[in-house]
Amino acid sequence: MITTDICIIGAGPVGLFAVFEAGLLKMRCHLIDALPQVGGQLSEIYPQKPIYDIPGYPEVKAQELVDNLMEQIAAFHPTFTLGERVESLNKQDDGSYIVTTNDGTSVHCQVVVIAGGLGCFEPRKPEIQNLEQFEGKGVAYMVKNPELLRDRRVVLAGGGDSALDWTIFLANVAAQVTLVHRSDSFRGAPDSAEKVFELAKEGKINLVLQSTISSVRGTGHVQEVNIVGKDKTVTTLETDHLIPLFGLTPKLGPIADWGLTIDKAAISVDTVDYSTNVERIYAIGDINTYPGKLKLILCGFHEAALMCQSAFKYVYPNQKLSFKYTTVNGVPTF
Amino acid sequence: MITTDICIIGAGPVGLFAVFEAGLLKMRCHLIDALPQVGGQLSEIYPQKPIYDIPGYPEVKAQELVDNLMEQIAAFHPTFTLGERVESLNKQDDGSYIVTTNDGTSVHCQVVVIAGGLGCFEPRKPEIQNLEQFEGKGVAYMVKNPELLRDRRVVLAGGGDSALDWTIFLANVAAQVTLVHRSDSFRGAPDSAEKVFELAKEGKINLVLQSTISSVRGTGHVQEVNIVGKDKTVTTLETDHLIPLFGLTPKLGPIADWGLTIDKAAISVDTVDYSTNVERIYAIGDINTYPGKLKLILCGFHEAALMCQSAFKYVYPNQKLSFKYTTVNGVPTF
Ligand SMILES: Cc1cc2nc3c(=O)[nH]c(=O)nc-3n(C[C@H](O)[C@H](O)[C@H](O)COP(=O)(O)OP(=O)(O)OC[C@H]3O[C@@H](n4cnc5c(N)ncnc54)[C@H](O)[C@@H]3O)c2cc1C
Ligand SMILES: Cc1cc2nc3c(=O)[nH]c(=O)nc-3n(C[C@H](O)[C@H](O)[C@H](O)COP(=O)(O)OP(=O)(O)OC[C@H]3O[C@@H](n4cnc5c(N)ncnc54)[C@H](O)[C@@H]3O)c2cc1C
Repeated sequence: MITTDICIIGAGPVGLFAVFEAGLLKMRCHLIDALPQVGGQLSEIYPQKPIYDIPGYPEVKAQELVDNLMEQIAAFHPTFTLGERVESLNKQDDGSYIVTTNDGTSVHCQVVVIAGGLGCFEPRKPEIQNLEQFEGKGVAYMVKNPELLRDRRVVLAGGGDSALDWTIFLANVAAQVTLVHRSDSFRGAPDSAEKVFELAKEGKINLVLQSTISSVRGTGHVQEVNIVGKDKTVTTLETDHLIPLFGLTPKLGPIADWGLTIDKAAISVDTVDYSTNVERIYAIGDINTYPGKLKLILCGFHEAALMCQSAFKYVYPNQKLSFKYTTVNGVPTF
Repeated sequence: MITTDICIIGAGPVGLFAVFEAGLLKMRCHLIDALPQVGGQLSEIYPQKPIYDIPGYPEVKAQELVDNLMEQIAAFHPTFTLGERVESLNKQDDGSYIVTTNDGTSVHCQVVVIAGGLGCFEPRKPEIQNLEQFEGKGVAYMVKNPELLRDRRVVLAGGGDSALDWTIFLANVAAQVTLVHRSDSFRGAPDSAEKVFELAKEGKINLVLQSTISSVRGTGHVQEVNIVGKDKTVTTLETDHLIPLFGLTPKLGPIADWGLTIDKAAISVDTVDYSTNVERIYAIGDINTYPGKLKLILCGFHEAALMCQSAFKYVYPNQKLSFKYTTVNGVPTF
């Protein structure tokens, strides 16, 4: 059991900045995100795109902003559980909460902050026969830990950046890498595509273009896939893993079942402190809604600051909160 | 008469960022500030101090943040009236406003945004006989335009950074510069103090230490000041200008008289859009108050964004507002 003051669900920009505001008030944070990396939409959807409306940044790349936020919060040593989805919140007799993920990780905390953005990113699943029945048994929709693929045979499917990047990365890790793609050109970055073509020419990977995977088979674990070519011919390929990478779409998911007031796929909050209808549970960033709400990063930052002032009373019930400027008092570390 | 869409009173960080949010919605802004420079408290009180809680900036000097904001809004060509204090707002028959300053500058606008911080910075006035009666007639508490002092005789009083910096600057501009200071050491930056001592040694300025100014005299305009030394001896010095620089303190000032609901020296607003009790008048940043309010720069940024969404209807009454991400749509310029 992990123990912390505030458990933050979602490590997007708003969840990350909440760690800073909490830290100024000496509250420790643990963050949980379903994605294998921090940064939420910024890192998952548009890491290399410039944002122009972060105040004080005429222009900043999304991933650069995330990196800067990670640097800003480092002094407060937040802890992370990545690649796991929060499934349930359980109120304890003393008012505190136990937060539990799909992998059974549990976090005991005084305050729950939902910074879940548009919800969990769920993989787009292609139509492949038997696919879901092999999930966790060789079929996965993201690569959480590439070391688990070392010296194994891997089939990847897709034509975007994820498919290209993982093909390149795994070429040096897996025993055998096959990339199956429907078209003969790629949607991903041109230099990644070029690198993949090169690796194929050098015989370091197998590239199967103008083809799709029709089924996956095995006894208890993935053992082979069927690949259908443009001319409808079917080939069978032996493999230990099948990783379809067709992008992710956000879904509110389990958050909808926690007894919170939901309005248009978002959690209703009070703008005094961005608290939900349930005591000790706050919602900040894209996941919340209130009159005037804008789904902007800079708005989530403000919400995080006001939320922390309010959460303080649950973490330090007997202390008076005093508000101080960082310029005058610096940043405490712990 | 200056004509614009939004007249912003106060060119602190929040007023500046409001220009950006307005610009995204194609609304033009004119800013008025009583200080001779933009940046509000940051440039006036702590330009060289680091701020740690600007999201995405592990550390940023106050002046650097102001410079970055100026760069960020440059594409929208805001116009400025600096060194003038807004005295009155006059509602026109069509609902628009005319904003007028103490110097008679007037601005016609559809929307008034008060981003006045803690109010106007008013000079701390030392006790000098006849001082106020010579204001504008040789006595001033800030240097708005040093060119007006070219080849004139100037007496400065004070021991902080402003007094030191202006002494150094005016040494090459004025016909004669005298700095009068109560102590024999300075509160300002050590290297500025050193430079002032050097200029005195070289005969380029007169340095009168352990002394105060007791009175100012002249017919219609400043002609001489009396200086009292530690041993109570009084010397008379001829001069054209007397500039006491003893710092500035913010005062709500005329804002208190505009019919707005005031609560604890701040303007009450509705957090849906940071509107005041008077239609077309908004208040953002340190000058406003609402349940949960924090006087933080990052909060003012959020307030500016929501305010602009609401102000849009007065500037473009017949258009539907559509909300767009800068990352997706870029930044329009005009
Ligand atoms: C293409 C694009 C361009 C954009 N451009 C801009 C722009 O220019 N300016 C701007 O301000 N905004 C922009 N945005 C919006 C901006 O990305 C969002 O406002 C921001 O990401 C919200 O941050 P957040 O931290 O609230 O949520 P997110 O970034 O969505 O992060 C939420 C995280 O919570 C996780 N999560 C959700 N539910 C669970 C659960 N049950 N268990 C575990 N983890 C969970 C998700 O995996 C996700 O990582 C843009 C968005 C897109 C898609
Ligand atoms: C020493 C110090 C350290 C601080 N540290 C931090 C920190 O670490 N983090 C943080 O977030 N905040 C900090 N702050 C607070 C921060 O400076 C304010 O929140 C911020 O300046 C508010 O911005 P603003 O644009 O609302 O107002 P201001 O910066 O106060 O600017 C308002 C402007 O309006 C002008 N004005 C007012 N009335 C009139 C009028 N009638 N006519 C014309 N002009 C007018 C004033 O001249 C002024 O320039 C600190 C403040 C101080 C003093």
